[in-house]
Amino acid sequence: MTTTIKDLGEIELLNRLKKYMSCGQIDDDVAEINTKNKSLLINTDLLVEKIHFSDEISNAKDIGWKCITTNISDLICSGSENITSFTVGLVLPPNTHWKWVENLYEGMLEAMQEFGGEIIGGDCSSGETKMISITAIGEMNLPRLHRGNALPGDYIVSTGFHGLSRLGLALLTSQKLPSEAQLSPELINRAINAHKRPYPALEALKALIACKPESISWRAAGTDSSDGLIESIRGICQASNCQAVLSKTSILKDTDWPKDDIWDEWLLNGGEDYELILSLPKEWAKSLSNKLKSAKIIGFIKEGKPNIFWDNLEKTKIGQSSLFRHF
Amino acid sequence: MTTTIKDLGEIELLNRLKKYMSCGQIDDDVAEINTKNKSLLINTDLLVEKIHFSDEISNAKDIGWKCITTNISDLICSGSENITSFTVGLVLPPNTHWKWVENLYEGMLEAMQEFGGEIIGGDCSSGETKMISITAIGEMNLPRLHRGNALPGDYIVSTGFHGLSRLGLALLTSQKLPSEAQLSPELINRAINAHKRPYPALEALKALIACKPESISWRAAGTDSSDGLIESIRGICQASNCQAVLSKTSILKDTDWPKDDIWDEWLLNGGEDYELILSLPKEWAKSLSNKLKSAKIIGFIKEGKPNIFWDNLEKTKIGQSSLFRHF
Repeated sequence: MTTTIKDLGEIELLNRLKKYMSCGQIDDDVAEINTKNKSLLINTDLLVEKIHFSDEISNAKDIGWKCITTNISDLICSGSENITSFTVGLVLPPNTHWKWVENLYEGMLEAMQEFGGEIIGGDCSSGETKMISITAIGEMNLPRLHRGNALPGDYIVSTGFHGLSRLGLALLTSQKLPSEAQLSPELINRAINAHKRPYPALEALKALIACKPESISWRAAGTDSSDGLIESIRGICQASNCQAVLSKTSILKDTDWPKDDIWDEWLLNGGEDYELILSLPKEWAKSLSNKLKSAKIIGFIKEGKPNIFWDNLEKTKIGQSSLFRHF
Repeated sequence: MTTTIKDLGEIELLNRLKKYMSCGQIDDDVAEINTKNKSLLINTDLLVEKIHFSDEISNAKDIGWKCITTNISDLICSGSENITSFTVGLVLPPNTHWKWVENLYEGMLEAMQEFGGEIIGGDCSSGETKMISITAIGEMNLPRLHRGNALPGDYIVSTGFHGLSRLGLALLTSQKLPSEAQLSPELINRAINAHKRPYPALEALKALIACKPESISWRAAGTDSSDGLIESIRGICQASNCQAVLSKTSILKDTDWPKDDIWDEWLLNGGEDYELILSLPKEWAKSLSNKLKSAKIIGFIKEGKPNIFWDNLEKTKIGQSSLFRHF
């Protein structure tokens, strides 16, 4: 049975979607947020079919997971560990199968079960192309991470390694690899999983909060590496008006990652990784890299016009990955 | 000069959009909401080109105004008089002219200047069809209006008259009118304006709050008439599990509205009107209709399986207007 959205009609579609929502918004158009005296963080992301997702690469459940987790990552890398609510705007062509929509929401719920939050409202409409608009809300905590909070003398910390998602995309779309290399089945598996099921760094944020030395303030800079490792550091340098010096040998790779240097491009500019990239006072950075196994100090911040160097003073190539040119 | 989005590229586009945003979100992906110890109301609406707007009917400034005001209306009809923030998700084909985008945001800002709020964040992406996703946030006040709050014995109040927007749409798209009728230039003007520049009932909400008799509680049911007058009452009956009895002679019309009965269809089911439709304790309803010139008691609520009758016990036709079947 392939029931389409057109078969259902708008009223029945909205009725079916209600089971995925918290009980607040059954009869009304708006939803309530009980703020419990906390300030909130809010983030809106758009995902457009063929640009951000496609049924050839991912099934609807994976797409649902991904659109929630990428939003969550933006909240986490701003310091929010308590994700509370989502609204979901959904544009669907009339011939979309109901099963696709059901799987999409199930993937979203799986992500919320893992990281927190519930759907409190939304809207849907027909349209020529599938489009998902997610607004995510979380409580504001300390540290309030900003790209613009870095200071000279900080250490730069990455909470995990990069490049897997880019490799996963290449494997899923049969793209040419940087070089002919024998990839282990485990690496292939991890890469595809990283691309289909991104996993935001909530545990890393919790470790960051738990390990702050008492003697220093909550000032910390941070972002996620969703646009690539180098791009995330470029963002910190730009917003903080400083320079980063990176140690290439300190940048972690998956144990099975090909040794050939040409593969570094995906490590540095692959994108769609969801690690925290932090600029922290030295003591805090050391504390975090001790506490969190996957975290590594990969460089430091110094004064100067925004730029990124390797520790041999070579300038990095920081051309933005073509992946993220949407226009 | 017709600079397109493709000419600008994503980074320059985002830079240009920043001037429309409050200063919070320049360097980061998320925005903050300072809740000042208040609970919040949130609403997400999608507007898709050719379904909710089209450049043939409205210019970009009008579209910007409309997408903000329709969202605001949802907050107002839930009881929020203090609109605080918006996020804007924008999907644009690469050949979209920058001027269109600029005008869209200027229309949005005009609406915010009139009704409150500021853009605190958003996202944009390319796509085949233009799409605007707005999330609006307002403070929660008393009365917290719900569709489900009506009780037998309540009076039903409309804060203004209906049908103008539907007539405006017909005039703008050269649709056939219900009958041949001589329309006054003033009516034509009001109708087109109602369609292009909907005006949410913020003053009516303020009057409702100001005129509540002290002796009664804040319990009140409400919605806006964006899906049509009858549909809004149907929503209240459904959610409150009760019946409405309406007095056709009490339903206000624009002074120049054609007398012919056949025009009632647009009055009752035209849609895209933004009046408050309230179900209130009698005393409060009388107080409001005294205080607010445009407000009128149009019927009452009684026990029974959800349904709507005229006061001559004739059942109304409550087939949902085909306008709102999006699939």
